[in-house]
Amino acid sequence: MKVSLNQKILSRNEECAQKNKAFFAENGILCLNVISSPGSGKTTTISRTIQDLHDKLTIGVIEGDIKTDTDAQKIRAAGAEAVQIETQGACHLSAEQVHRAIEALGAEKMDVVIIENVGNLVCPSAFDLGESARVILLSVPEGDDKPVKYPGTFAEADAVLINKIDLFDYIDFNLERVLADIRVVNPDAKIFQVSATTGEGMEQWYEWLLERANKKT
Amino acid sequence: MKVSLNQKILSRNEECAQKNKAFFAENGILCLNVISSPGSGKTTTISRTIQDLHDKLTIGVIEGDIKTDTDAQKIRAAGAEAVQIETQGACHLSAEQVHRAIEALGAEKMDVVIIENVGNLVCPSAFDLGESARVILLSVPEGDDKPVKYPGTFAEADAVLINKIDLFDYIDFNLERVLADIRVVNPDAKIFQVSATTGEGMEQWYEWLLERANKKT
Repeated sequence: MKVSLNQKILSRNEECAQKNKAFFAENGILCLNVISSPGSGKTTTISRTIQDLHDKLTIGVIEGDIKTDTDAQKIRAAGAEAVQIETQGACHLSAEQVHRAIEALGAEKMDVVIIENVGNLVCPSAFDLGESARVILLSVPEGDDKPVKYPGTFAEADAVLINKIDLFDYIDFNLERVLADIRVVNPDAKIFQVSATTGEGMEQWYEWLLERANKKT
Repeated sequence: MKVSLNQKILSRNEECAQKNKAFFAENGILCLNVISSPGSGKTTTISRTIQDLHDKLTIGVIEGDIKTDTDAQKIRAAGAEAVQIETQGACHLSAEQVHRAIEALGAEKMDVVIIENVGNLVCPSAFDLGESARVILLSVPEGDDKPVKYPGTFAEADAVLINKIDLFDYIDFNLERVLADIRVVNPDAKIFQVSATTGEGMEQWYEWLLERANKKT
């Protein structure tokens, strides 16, 4: 019974995800679903991206959090429109929540819609939101064993951002191991080494983003 | 239907949790359910605790991970017995899994059983495992906004370990804010500031643990 109900929930989600996907395709919008542990730097990375690309891309953001709207406030301060979804305890965003947020955001006028999922490296990866690409963040302080411990999440990534590389000097982190372990479950993902705080490495990420959004410079 | 099924799953879990709780009480065992984001330092904290208290406490560990048994290996290297549960995708441990692990561990001969839950700051907090106390880890690199963003998790803590305080110098982290925000949702939790890597602050945590295990020095 558990399995069949979960299948029903997933299939309802999938139906709505297809609608979102069609909307993004019809409007030429690149939609990114950004997933990571709590505190990997999703909001900081998105904020810096908005600021650095403000003359090239119109970005709208859908923020998922269990509580608070502080992330949406930070995104607005960075210069983009943002809609906050408070999940009130739920551990991931659903395609239906994103569908309503797309309307609230007025997404049809955007080049890129970034969905910042609930901070959780497990559950969000099971729910398609209709995104064009999935972006996983892994921050250096989380440790170099995360790709082997959460293989399902990394397997579904189109891009992986290894964030907080400014902390390499202070933390024991085997970068070669991480790169090799990601390759085992996902040979095709683009991997970027960045610090959203210092800006190091962000240019390569921006190039990928602009190319995906058909705004290659 | 979703709600009633979830209630059924939760109530089956609750039944088994009560059995675990009775087992721990009958055998005079302190059982800790340790919950945090991925990479907050659960395994490092537990390993150091085992090593530093090896002449005072017999500790057994139940390790929850989606994949790999590397954490159980680390615990055994630190000198304690460990049983690994690979959840194969599930985002939290259940009381039933813990029940089976108690038997596999031979827990009746332990003073303390530490359950290291799956790295996830959301889902594990909804599932009682029959533990005597719940311990939440928050590491400095995760950021000072986590107690307000995950209030339900912090509300249920008996102890909160703010870990990786050796990184205070390199990361913008408002400790006063974190302490105040935890107090709002949980006035009674004991809060410890530690670095499981350098050992700083661990003595206070050990005192609490020994007192809870009725092994006060």
